[in-house]
Amino acid sequence: MRKIAACFLTLSIAAYAVEPSPSAPLRGYTAEHSANEVQWEKKFSEVPDQGRLRENMRRLTARPHHVGSPYDKDNAEWLLAQLKSYGLDAKIEEFQALFPTPKSRKLELLGPNRYEAKLQEPSIAIDPTSNQKDEALPTYNAYSKDGDVTAPLVYVNYGAPADYEELERMGVSVKGAIVLARYGQTWRGIKPKLAAEHGAVGCLIFSDPKDDGYVRGESFPDGPMRPAEGAQRGSVMDMPVYPGDPQTPGVGAKPGTKLIPLDKVQTITKIPVMPISYEDATPFLKALNGEVVPENWRGGLPLTYKTGPSKVMAHLALAFNWDRKTLYDVVATIPGAKYPDQWVIRGNHHDGWVNGAGDPISGASPELEEARGLGELLKQGWKPERTIMYCWWDGEEPALLGSTEWAEYHAEELQKHAVAYFNSDGNGRGFFRAEGSHSLENFINSVVKDVTDPETGMSVWKRARLASQVRTGRGGEGGGAEARTRPDTRIGALGSGSDYTVFIDHLGVPSANLGYGGEDEGGGQYHSIYDDFYWYTHFSDTDFAYGKALAQTGGMMMMRMADADVIPYQFTDQAETVHGYVTEIKKLADTMRMQTKERNTDIAEGAYKAAADPHKVSVPPPVEVVPPYLNFAPLDQASDDLTAAAAEYDKAFTAHAATAGNDVNEELLKTERALLDKGGLPNRPWFENMVYAPGFYTGYGVKTLPAVREAIEQKEWPMVDAQITRTAEALEREVAVLKTATKELGGK
Amino acid sequence: MRKIAACFLTLSIAAYAVEPSPSAPLRGYTAEHSANEVQWEKKFSEVPDQGRLRENMRRLTARPHHVGSPYDKDNAEWLLAQLKSYGLDAKIEEFQALFPTPKSRKLELLGPNRYEAKLQEPSIAIDPTSNQKDEALPTYNAYSKDGDVTAPLVYVNYGAPADYEELERMGVSVKGAIVLARYGQTWRGIKPKLAAEHGAVGCLIFSDPKDDGYVRGESFPDGPMRPAEGAQRGSVMDMPVYPGDPQTPGVGAKPGTKLIPLDKVQTITKIPVMPISYEDATPFLKALNGEVVPENWRGGLPLTYKTGPSKVMAHLALAFNWDRKTLYDVVATIPGAKYPDQWVIRGNHHDGWVNGAGDPISGASPELEEARGLGELLKQGWKPERTIMYCWWDGEEPALLGSTEWAEYHAEELQKHAVAYFNSDGNGRGFFRAEGSHSLENFINSVVKDVTDPETGMSVWKRARLASQVRTGRGGEGGGAEARTRPDTRIGALGSGSDYTVFIDHLGVPSANLGYGGEDEGGGQYHSIYDDFYWYTHFSDTDFAYGKALAQTGGMMMMRMADADVIPYQFTDQAETVHGYVTEIKKLADTMRMQTKERNTDIAEGAYKAAADPHKVSVPPPVEVVPPYLNFAPLDQASDDLTAAAAEYDKAFTAHAATAGNDVNEELLKTERALLDKGGLPNRPWFENMVYAPGFYTGYGVKTLPAVREAIEQKEWPMVDAQITRTAEALEREVAVLKTATKELGGK
Repeated sequence: MRKIAACFLTLSIAAYAVEPSPSAPLRGYTAEHSANEVQWEKKFSEVPDQGRLRENMRRLTARPHHVGSPYDKDNAEWLLAQLKSYGLDAKIEEFQALFPTPKSRKLELLGPNRYEAKLQEPSIAIDPTSNQKDEALPTYNAYSKDGDVTAPLVYVNYGAPADYEELERMGVSVKGAIVLARYGQTWRGIKPKLAAEHGAVGCLIFSDPKDDGYVRGESFPDGPMRPAEGAQRGSVMDMPVYPGDPQTPGVGAKPGTKLIPLDKVQTITKIPVMPISYEDATPFLKALNGEVVPENWRGGLPLTYKTGPSKVMAHLALAFNWDRKTLYDVVATIPGAKYPDQWVIRGNHHDGWVNGAGDPISGASPELEEARGLGELLKQGWKPERTIMYCWWDGEEPALLGSTEWAEYHAEELQKHAVAYFNSDGNGRGFFRAEGSHSLENFINSVVKDVTDPETGMSVWKRARLASQVRTGRGGEGGGAEARTRPDTRIGALGSGSDYTVFIDHLGVPSANLGYGGEDEGGGQYHSIYDDFYWYTHFSDTDFAYGKALAQTGGMMMMRMADADVIPYQFTDQAETVHGYVTEIKKLADTMRMQTKERNTDIAEGAYKAAADPHKVSVPPPVEVVPPYLNFAPLDQASDDLTAAAAEYDKAFTAHAATAGNDVNEELLKTERALLDKGGLPNRPWFENMVYAPGFYTGYGVKTLPAVREAIEQKEWPMVDAQITRTAEALEREVAVLKTATKELGGK
Repeated sequence: MRKIAACFLTLSIAAYAVEPSPSAPLRGYTAEHSANEVQWEKKFSEVPDQGRLRENMRRLTARPHHVGSPYDKDNAEWLLAQLKSYGLDAKIEEFQALFPTPKSRKLELLGPNRYEAKLQEPSIAIDPTSNQKDEALPTYNAYSKDGDVTAPLVYVNYGAPADYEELERMGVSVKGAIVLARYGQTWRGIKPKLAAEHGAVGCLIFSDPKDDGYVRGESFPDGPMRPAEGAQRGSVMDMPVYPGDPQTPGVGAKPGTKLIPLDKVQTITKIPVMPISYEDATPFLKALNGEVVPENWRGGLPLTYKTGPSKVMAHLALAFNWDRKTLYDVVATIPGAKYPDQWVIRGNHHDGWVNGAGDPISGASPELEEARGLGELLKQGWKPERTIMYCWWDGEEPALLGSTEWAEYHAEELQKHAVAYFNSDGNGRGFFRAEGSHSLENFINSVVKDVTDPETGMSVWKRARLASQVRTGRGGEGGGAEARTRPDTRIGALGSGSDYTVFIDHLGVPSANLGYGGEDEGGGQYHSIYDDFYWYTHFSDTDFAYGKALAQTGGMMMMRMADADVIPYQFTDQAETVHGYVTEIKKLADTMRMQTKERNTDIAEGAYKAAADPHKVSVPPPVEVVPPYLNFAPLDQASDDLTAAAAEYDKAFTAHAATAGNDVNEELLKTERALLDKGGLPNRPWFENMVYAPGFYTGYGVKTLPAVREAIEQKEWPMVDAQITRTAEALEREVAVLKTATKELGGK
């Protein structure tokens, strides 16, 4: 669902200096077991086949396969048949979810230059699947409310919080207006949410050529970028409150599950929203009056972008079929030979907005090759020590429906048994990228040292690391120093935008998102009818070399986690990262305090008035309460305690892991779970993880230590102390678990 | 000539805390004399009249008035008549200079989509002077060499040094090509200079709508920005080597002056160059093949910008009339009553590229009101103590011809007599801006505290200061602290781009450039047929309120400098600023050393190779010599000595200025002259000032301590030590002068 943006590497060191010698045993393995594992992984990595990846994609993208479509179900059944043909135990699990589709869509510009938006993506002769109009969903935003509004237009740039502050400074209000926002920067659902909070009555989201059109490259089909009439479908549900079926939060929806009535659902938008192409957007942009927008608000169309409001009115009328549809999750299980109650889970969604080649089949198809590879190993006598589960989720695009309902339905078992969840989604050509729980950081590093980059022949770990060295180190002070001393390359934290969300944020399962990208020229096909086999095989990982690399990466990750004697979590990386977050947050509060003082003084001195052009409207920012000094002591203490406990655990692990029993594994299952607080985050109790969450006003973008960070960012000063305490308590719970695990290993 | 960009204020403090009480005497004045001066200045400031400013502009811009045109001479004669009518002693001084004009211009794209560039700016019905085609110069770049070349095209972004580094990284060469550069970022003359250094055979410079077209505002005549067929004339002479008549460097050219033969002139371009509109540029940009350009290379046209080279050829053929023309400098003199041999000089050019309203009449017309005002005061009995000279220069646009030839001709007198030179050029609506010699910083601050901003009623000093407080302080750490403690607002250093160049850089006369701007929406009319009365009175300082403010500022600056008992230079600001430059340069060398080491390591480790997309050409940067450690001791010592000497001078000044004689004035005249080194800068001996110079590769942009800074930037390591020594010696010469002046004041 989400465009790939994560970057594995922000720092780096000289690769040759730390890559372990081949003879060092894998973490959590005895020497002998390690050597054995390496042999099996090697066998596995020879299985994934580029030709099969191409044929998988051709088959799975042959027709539109969104939730509720015939081909969505057909794909699920085909996946099931494939898994069975590999000798795996597989099934389809069905759930129900609300999935609105358009009944009618109308958008027009009124006044003397009346224009009726086309709202159609044209077929392109050279692209054989671009003409399947009968089956394809039209361009729309799922979970927009019904509405019929006539109002002036205001341009709000990306529609992010800072954009509304800027509009206020310019004296422009969106109250009673239809906002015109461009795609990008924030997750799209944030745009109507903020627009509604500021009093707008409708929201249009257009694809600006600066963001994924001709400014960045040639338009499809000459190049990969979005053509003039292309538009981006997508969900606008308020997923930062909760994802999944809007009518059954926290509960896996089966037929008969009690539903929240539609008019009580919190996550449907408050105003009608629709995506449009830049061809359709142009007349609306040209109709805007008002001042010329600031420089970073200017898009790539050949016109002068202005704030509005427009003198002429726009008319937006949307009606949807508010139906519940069946979701088809495909799940294959390989029982663990030694620890069947410890589950290692892999997932990628199979539903698309239309033909969905880049998103999601470029990830779903390699996952199928992984399953085939493990099937081959099973035939040769390999047995995983832990239970392995391979999942293909339905309904990710609308709202992470399939994964969320499944995980909510199996919540109790998962909290008992889940060791890790490894997600992927769209995949492309380029560099290895990962985000995830930091207890997995060392483990992820270890696996990708053993995956070969198809373009350079070096390990994907080394390539990504060296590349980041140049990208951040070039001309930089700092950066370079840490890059050359930290043994593990950092991974980013997980926000949202794909199926890992329920696992990490709701259930406390250590999770990661894996993929390749950065060289393919993607973007312009995203969530359009052009994201299809033709586009992908001309402009992305055209020979599926990185599809193969992803299959090798995902499969080896699953095997190595499933086969280890002791679960190879590692906590010193996590403790160091959490310490960094605490430092960041303290700095954030200090900076806000200093800036508020400075700004208040400037306002009092009349500096904003002096700087303003009297020929234009210019409103000084409001005087604000100076942020109070805050008691970060509990968080500092917890962070220190985690650092100490992680170091003790590591010591014990080094000394005793080879002889450890399963008790330590059972204890380790509780480490990430300890970070959950049953009360959840303020105003969104579904999100229980006190270390990671998608931002309430970013949607995709992560907020670490979210309860504290967002209370500060949103200036909820009276609330901060309590959130510091709750967050510190979560960390202290993990400390306690770690101490027990250390004892069970034979440490102090 | 140059677009206004300088900013008076980078820092600020609470205005009320330091603005001197009205009763504190002016610096360099006794209390009684000060009170008297204030009265005269007050009388003066009531003279400038907005209606006259409007009529001056209407008259002076009625027809094209470039060098050699009938109306250029007519304007000079009209100015002379006006000055005489004010009762002033005025004359026209004539000089000669090479001024090429087009004989023929041809540009075409060859191949299947053949296009012949129009090279014409259309008349616009509503703009009455836009149809004077018979008299107007066509669009061209002055001092382009003749040439007829047919070659493929390469896009070079702004054509700055970093752009060529980027092209090298992408494996694109301009050798044998015609480069397509966009206007902006560097002075235009740098573009063909660098293109030729890299082997290009021709250069086209186009006005991109992102830089001064519809991206920034509505196009003329609906708004102020450049229309599709508008193009920017301008000089491309290599003025960083020397400005003025190319055939008589260092010598004021009169009939009979010995000329360098044309084929020996160093400052004419090495390849043919021509400016074009974006309408003309579009077919050429569309013809480019190659990779999509980096993000910051993308302009505002609705196409995909690529590097090239193009497969099809372009044909550029230019021929010029290489004539020498007469320059008409208008000079009015008011003899000093007490110190006739100390000259305070004011100047603004009167020639334009076409009708030249914004550039230069918006500055030249207020200057005329200043002269009228002083004429009024003379009638009322005021007499300046020093000699005042008011100059209107001809031929600034082609190459600062009129000011340079005049100052070269009068060099000996000027070096003996010149106290200060105050320049202005195009003026607009908004904030006070100044750049200049830092010995004038305190003086400039003192004057503009007494000029009222027409829009806010506060002083222009306070307004600019408060505004900068918000612009730099907003959300910033740092900045604010100094902003609230430094009594004098900083002024920038002078690069080039207007007539102060010969005064400060060649003759060591303390100089400043003064003006208003920042609120008018200028830019798109610059150096086109549309920079005329209609444009200016619709889109810039439409009621000439800031024309009046400039006349008040310039006139009061002249009076206060001319009337002081002791010349009100101040050196502690200068010493602090020079110390800042030394610190900057040391940091520059350290940063370059660190970055070179880091980059060399990255190259050796293969990091650039790892980061590169194998589907594209990507060339790692070259391994470079690590910058050596340098002996900055002489510069540190000189900077410290200057700081001490300035403080001693200030102490003596405070104690004894009231009773000082003229000896100290005579000594003070040597302070800025002491900064000259007769050997000049490396490779450009005309530039003798060791503290200020326009950059050899920036053209407009200043390089402070230029001999040292450019040797470091250009990696001429063996040369740096000698340049440090020469620069330190220049500063020590000023120290010696200051010590003498201190003694003459009665200090130690």
